[in-house]
Amino acid sequence: MARFIKDRSKSKGLAPGSLVFIGRQKMNKPELFVMDYNQNSLEEKQIHSLTEIEDYIHKDGVTWLNINGIHDLELIRELGDMFNITSLLLESVLNTDQRPKFESFDNHDAFILKMIHYDETIKQVVAEQFSLILGKRYVITLQERQGDVFKGVRERIRNKKGRVRLSDNDYLMYALLDAIADNYAIAIETVGRKIDELDGRIFKYNEKGLTEEIYTLKTELNYLRKSVRPVKDVVNSYLKAESPFFMEKNIVYLKDLNDSITHSAESIELYNNLVSDQLNIYNTNMSNSLNQVMKVLTIFASIFIPLTFLAGIYGMNFEYIPELKYKYAYLIFWILVLVIGIGLIIYFRRKKWL
Amino acid sequence: MARFIKDRSKSKGLAPGSLVFIGRQKMNKPELFVMDYNQNSLEEKQIHSLTEIEDYIHKDGVTWLNINGIHDLELIRELGDMFNITSLLLESVLNTDQRPKFESFDNHDAFILKMIHYDETIKQVVAEQFSLILGKRYVITLQERQGDVFKGVRERIRNKKGRVRLSDNDYLMYALLDAIADNYAIAIETVGRKIDELDGRIFKYNEKGLTEEIYTLKTELNYLRKSVRPVKDVVNSYLKAESPFFMEKNIVYLKDLNDSITHSAESIELYNNLVSDQLNIYNTNMSNSLNQVMKVLTIFASIFIPLTFLAGIYGMNFEYIPELKYKYAYLIFWILVLVIGIGLIIYFRRKKWL
Amino acid sequence: MARFIKDRSKSKGLAPGSLVFIGRQKMNKPELFVMDYNQNSLEEKQIHSLTEIEDYIHKDGVTWLNINGIHDLELIRELGDMFNITSLLLESVLNTDQRPKFESFDNHDAFILKMIHYDETIKQVVAEQFSLILGKRYVITLQERQGDVFKGVRERIRNKKGRVRLSDNDYLMYALLDAIADNYAIAIETVGRKIDELDGRIFKYNEKGLTEEIYTLKTELNYLRKSVRPVKDVVNSYLKAESPFFMEKNIVYLKDLNDSITHSAESIELYNNLVSDQLNIYNTNMSNSLNQVMKVLTIFASIFIPLTFLAGIYGMNFEYIPELKYKYAYLIFWILVLVIGIGLIIYFRRKKWL
Amino acid sequence: MARFIKDRSKSKGLAPGSLVFIGRQKMNKPELFVMDYNQNSLEEKQIHSLTEIEDYIHKDGVTWLNINGIHDLELIRELGDMFNITSLLLESVLNTDQRPKFESFDNHDAFILKMIHYDETIKQVVAEQFSLILGKRYVITLQERQGDVFKGVRERIRNKKGRVRLSDNDYLMYALLDAIADNYAIAIETVGRKIDELDGRIFKYNEKGLTEEIYTLKTELNYLRKSVRPVKDVVNSYLKAESPFFMEKNIVYLKDLNDSITHSAESIELYNNLVSDQLNIYNTNMSNSLNQVMKVLTIFASIFIPLTFLAGIYGMNFEYIPELKYKYAYLIFWILVLVIGIGLIIYFRRKKWL
Amino acid sequence: MARFIKDRSKSKGLAPGSLVFIGRQKMNKPELFVMDYNQNSLEEKQIHSLTEIEDYIHKDGVTWLNINGIHDLELIRELGDMFNITSLLLESVLNTDQRPKFESFDNHDAFILKMIHYDETIKQVVAEQFSLILGKRYVITLQERQGDVFKGVRERIRNKKGRVRLSDNDYLMYALLDAIADNYAIAIETVGRKIDELDGRIFKYNEKGLTEEIYTLKTELNYLRKSVRPVKDVVNSYLKAESPFFMEKNIVYLKDLNDSITHSAESIELYNNLVSDQLNIYNTNMSNSLNQVMKVLTIFASIFIPLTFLAGIYGMNFEYIPELKYKYAYLIFWILVLVIGIGLIIYFRRKKWL
Repeated sequence: MARFIKDRSKSKGLAPGSLVFIGRQKMNKPELFVMDYNQNSLEEKQIHSLTEIEDYIHKDGVTWLNINGIHDLELIRELGDMFNITSLLLESVLNTDQRPKFESFDNHDAFILKMIHYDETIKQVVAEQFSLILGKRYVITLQERQGDVFKGVRERIRNKKGRVRLSDNDYLMYALLDAIADNYAIAIETVGRKIDELDGRIFKYNEKGLTEEIYTLKTELNYLRKSVRPVKDVVNSYLKAESPFFMEKNIVYLKDLNDSITHSAESIELYNNLVSDQLNIYNTNMSNSLNQVMKVLTIFASIFIPLTFLAGIYGMNFEYIPELKYKYAYLIFWILVLVIGIGLIIYFRRKKWL
Repeated sequence: MARFIKDRSKSKGLAPGSLVFIGRQKMNKPELFVMDYNQNSLEEKQIHSLTEIEDYIHKDGVTWLNINGIHDLELIRELGDMFNITSLLLESVLNTDQRPKFESFDNHDAFILKMIHYDETIKQVVAEQFSLILGKRYVITLQERQGDVFKGVRERIRNKKGRVRLSDNDYLMYALLDAIADNYAIAIETVGRKIDELDGRIFKYNEKGLTEEIYTLKTELNYLRKSVRPVKDVVNSYLKAESPFFMEKNIVYLKDLNDSITHSAESIELYNNLVSDQLNIYNTNMSNSLNQVMKVLTIFASIFIPLTFLAGIYGMNFEYIPELKYKYAYLIFWILVLVIGIGLIIYFRRKKWL
Repeated sequence: MARFIKDRSKSKGLAPGSLVFIGRQKMNKPELFVMDYNQNSLEEKQIHSLTEIEDYIHKDGVTWLNINGIHDLELIRELGDMFNITSLLLESVLNTDQRPKFESFDNHDAFILKMIHYDETIKQVVAEQFSLILGKRYVITLQERQGDVFKGVRERIRNKKGRVRLSDNDYLMYALLDAIADNYAIAIETVGRKIDELDGRIFKYNEKGLTEEIYTLKTELNYLRKSVRPVKDVVNSYLKAESPFFMEKNIVYLKDLNDSITHSAESIELYNNLVSDQLNIYNTNMSNSLNQVMKVLTIFASIFIPLTFLAGIYGMNFEYIPELKYKYAYLIFWILVLVIGIGLIIYFRRKKWL
Repeated sequence: MARFIKDRSKSKGLAPGSLVFIGRQKMNKPELFVMDYNQNSLEEKQIHSLTEIEDYIHKDGVTWLNINGIHDLELIRELGDMFNITSLLLESVLNTDQRPKFESFDNHDAFILKMIHYDETIKQVVAEQFSLILGKRYVITLQERQGDVFKGVRERIRNKKGRVRLSDNDYLMYALLDAIADNYAIAIETVGRKIDELDGRIFKYNEKGLTEEIYTLKTELNYLRKSVRPVKDVVNSYLKAESPFFMEKNIVYLKDLNDSITHSAESIELYNNLVSDQLNIYNTNMSNSLNQVMKVLTIFASIFIPLTFLAGIYGMNFEYIPELKYKYAYLIFWILVLVIGIGLIIYFRRKKWL
Repeated sequence: MARFIKDRSKSKGLAPGSLVFIGRQKMNKPELFVMDYNQNSLEEKQIHSLTEIEDYIHKDGVTWLNINGIHDLELIRELGDMFNITSLLLESVLNTDQRPKFESFDNHDAFILKMIHYDETIKQVVAEQFSLILGKRYVITLQERQGDVFKGVRERIRNKKGRVRLSDNDYLMYALLDAIADNYAIAIETVGRKIDELDGRIFKYNEKGLTEEIYTLKTELNYLRKSVRPVKDVVNSYLKAESPFFMEKNIVYLKDLNDSITHSAESIELYNNLVSDQLNIYNTNMSNSLNQVMKVLTIFASIFIPLTFLAGIYGMNFEYIPELKYKYAYLIFWILVLVIGIGLIIYFRRKKWL
């Protein structure tokens, strides 16, 4: 659960807009990668300094600068200066505890979102900060570390598949956000599959670790909800913002994105309901099983405790116990045992315990 | 529960609008069926290629093209070209995990919904993708497989019953959506009847499989909610969209449809409340029954355990136990047994356990 | 619970607006009753055919046609023709599973609501379909069977009590709806009284049938909510509709009606909270009582089981048990018994079990 | 709980606006008290007939007529005639089950609210009907019986404290409503203190009457919510109504009142959450304690039951039991007892039960 | 929990706007501290009387008056006179039970909020009243006692860090509110960490004090919600108020503040969900553990109780028990014991209890 909490002590008392990286550094050195394309040509290059990008920016065509690693404050500050980004926005870019949001500025639109994937090694949903800045002819994306979420988009740019090479940077932005929304759906689906696997187990007796797993899934869903639900507001407010950087003819794509996020948010609630139902049913089954156990105990004890008492009586050493001398006493004793035993069995049958 | 999850891996990383069928293929070869009618004439025909439809489209009168089976990407692409359908919409048509939605385009309106029926063989609610495109003088419907949901509509077209032959294609669309809404109501009613049947059983002792059934019903209701609730928004947004393809005089029918869907959505919530109440009450009954079991055990054990101890004492072999020699000892022992036994019974009576 | 479900199979696949009676027929032959009045004169009459009403309609003054029994499709159709009622509305009038709604047409306003009363013989809340059509100078009401809900209104018309004789047909409509709202309040109150009666019983031990009663009350409240809650929307949308059939000066009465329905809806939620609290508290009491039972058992068993073991030891027949021969052994045995017994009692006192 | 329900049977079937007192009469004879003041002079007087008030009304200055006791229908009717109050409003004034509401008329504004206090003798929150009519230069208040809620306001009028003597009747109305809002806060606080007192007790073992108290508090909060929550809407709709009887410069006071009521409503929800948490935690503690009890029983029984069996074996009277004759048998028996006993204790230690 | 309740008895019956300090006095003598600055100069000074501030106010530049300690009614009244603050607002400033609110006046804007910190000594979240008045060129802040929340802001003023020295008093207000929002985040985070620490413990057996801690955390979250949630409305209504005292260019800062508060409010709900899940899972684990305990008891008792009965039989002293004389009887007895014992073990294995 520790991932719910980010250490904010570094930023305490600082001026708003002070650049502090809040989070855990996940790479050594930031990587900068540029793709610059138009319908006819494509240039892609790993760059080492922001100054290298200037040429691309001033050319026609779409420039996509992707930065992996956001802990290098100097780089971020330089980026801010170059693209006129307010320090308040840069602060949010650096704060991995930032709630997903959209903000519109004079010279660019900015999105701060989460990327989500299910990490099979630690069996947890992992969220990473993702920022996107959409300006005139350029898109800047910032991730916490190298991932493969945008591989598909890059392939499409290289192979001229789909509309991305034919379109402007607003379509690129949509393609990137769509890739992220796809990843949400896949992470939620993974959690959904795990919930699905529990389905048979909640009816089995004495499943080891079931409550741990249910608890983990509930926590994952809480974590997903925290990351995904605010994105609905983000896309909605972008739809309403009528940004000059996003062409009206592409609005249909945003609506599609909106649908996708809404579907994800609804799935989280659906899965949450399903796990809660599973926990409730599991609890009911536990009570059922306790009832069964207690009935076995009660039947055994209730039948044999009186019989043991009876045997105890004729094990007493009183000098004068007339029955002891009677020849058929032992036979009668056994008959009595059978009568009491069968009587109690009939009694428990009536109570439907047997 | 597996049906909550569709395998989306095929679409991962693809360009938005890439045609991929997400779902389980339910037929071999798609079937295309055309009904073309006006007030006076009716033509109906199984066609084998989309080109056959062109003649009908250009005639006056309403053309209804129904396609069963949506996994043939080539066919869907051809359909898209012929009717100017965006690839983004075609992608949604093919994605059986698509959230119900309505979208309006320049040359047509599009609905993507679910058809629902309760499959008695697998004892589950089954949802299938249904898409409807309403253009100028034509209606195209796409289903995952042949069903009998629209049988009634076809009969009415053939027999000139109701208003459908007298009206335009917008009324046909309404008639089809109304048939689907009717099916929702019937599927929900089926689940409702199953909940009804549990009513007596939650008070019976030790009902086998009751928790499984309650869990199944809760899951069915979650599944129904997922399919039906978004349809309310769909119909509402269509009401507000003032589509040029839907005549204002028929708005009253849409409102009726809206009522029907609202009723279905409310019924799902109602049944959900009822099942939750049943589970709660069943749990209370389980506790009641555990209490009964424990009281029986406690009464038996508490009465006979002290008596057995008493018998144990006079079974001891100490050389010097004065009571053993006393002539009335055995009689007194029995009196003691009765006194203790009756005393404890009175005690438990007071506690109202007997 | 069966009353939550109406058999809709008859209407499946039929054209929208097909007249089918969905529900259980509650009378043999429909009864038609007309009251025609103005400030000075009153005529009231049982009629046998709709044609008899024509004269009244064309006169000045208010005509109120009340129909008991809505299963006679021919009559309903005739009514529709005479008053220009759309078949879609007639279908809703006949569908006793119809969600409460208001609709406005060119020549009349229509309300479809539920009448509710608590039937003491079956100990259930019973809802019946009620439709009201408000046209120019006339009011038509349709009920499933003869009831006494409108007795008060009729008396007031006859005795010139209140404003009804001095007012137009919109006030009559209000008076009728107000009578229905009053009946809601009374049915809810009856359920409320039953909840009140449970108040003392949830603290008593071992109350027979308590969970059944709580379950029944929860079900009644679900049923009431289903019938009453949509009526709030109905009255609200009528307030906004600014109907030409309802005079503005009488709006204050509608607001009063609105208050009354809101109060009823809030009462249902309030009682639902109260029953849920009762169930929770009852469950807590059950746990308390289980705890008590288990403590009695534990105290008895824990004290006597070790003592019985001790007695068992000296009942053994080993040849060499030195204690057996010791003269004070039996005395010491009893002292030991007392020490162990009192020690355990002190232990349980410390644990506050005694 | 009986106070949730008012007997409405008297009003059943009556015309809307019929004057019927619904509730329990709490005084013998209504008391009428007039305060008439302006900046310079103050007259106050117990009056015996409404005609006495006419002089005050026609004078300049503020006239406040307070009526204690609302069961005298004749008086209420006379009041209605004198101040032009509609019978519908009078009906609401007399109906102590009326939901809090505000209504605006041509010649006055009317509020129907509840006064609330915690009655220490019956240990319950008690709500009483309070109506206020604000006209031109006068304020009429109606209560069910004499209380001390307005003592503070009267003192301020008499001693020229605060703004009330310097202001018009709208400020007087605000002062009265503010006194009522203060009383809400105090009643809620009293319930809050009782919840606070439970805080330590839910962790104690075997608290007598705790569930009764929790249930009572939940019921009190339900009762408070019913009385207070609608008042928020009342104040809000008055703020929007822009009444001619309430001066704009005093709107700031209404906002303050709004804050106060919102705070009260939020406190009710807060306390409701707190009691629910207490009940949940208490239930968890009950389970904990049951676990403890069962572990003690299990440890005792599991250790001594096998040992008793062992002792039983050597108490058997078979002629041929070789061990009985062995000299060290008794010693070995004791060693066995110790080994089994200690072994089981170690086992339970491992399970962390000891 | 006592901190939920403030003693309001002092204010009962007083005129609205009467100055009464509601709360617990936390300092001896109020401290007044002035910072007056512009881009070039800074003056800061502890002052002893409000009259000293007049000079600063009339100078250009920003004047920030901070008052620690709000129990001195004379001082508050003087402040009110000097800055034209209505007594109603002053009453709210003094009422530490005041719900967070914003109010706009002709000559200033006023905020009443809570400062929050987690006090490690009493292990509780502590909220203190904070009021801020933003006028022309001045900011007045009132706290209950000296704290270090604004240390960072003061440092930035002194060291010319950030924008505060370059900006007007509206930015100072933002900086102060931002410091408070930061403190909210930190207090919530502290509670979050405590919840995090419970994560492992809910699966451990027999954790001492766990329910107490869960209850405490739930109470803390309730307390935080009460203080933080209304602040969202406060910031939102300020955003909409378009105050003349807050420059439009700084609105972006308010939006950032809004984000921060929304994030805090969402975190409280998130943590609340997590603790509720923990409690549910803990309860399930308790049931699991009870099941384990009962199974151990049942297995022990069910195996040995019949065997003890068997041994009891042959311990009886009947003269005629044929088996006793049979030579292999003892051997057969042991075989029987083994058969019964192993049989029961197999039976419990089948039931999966072993």
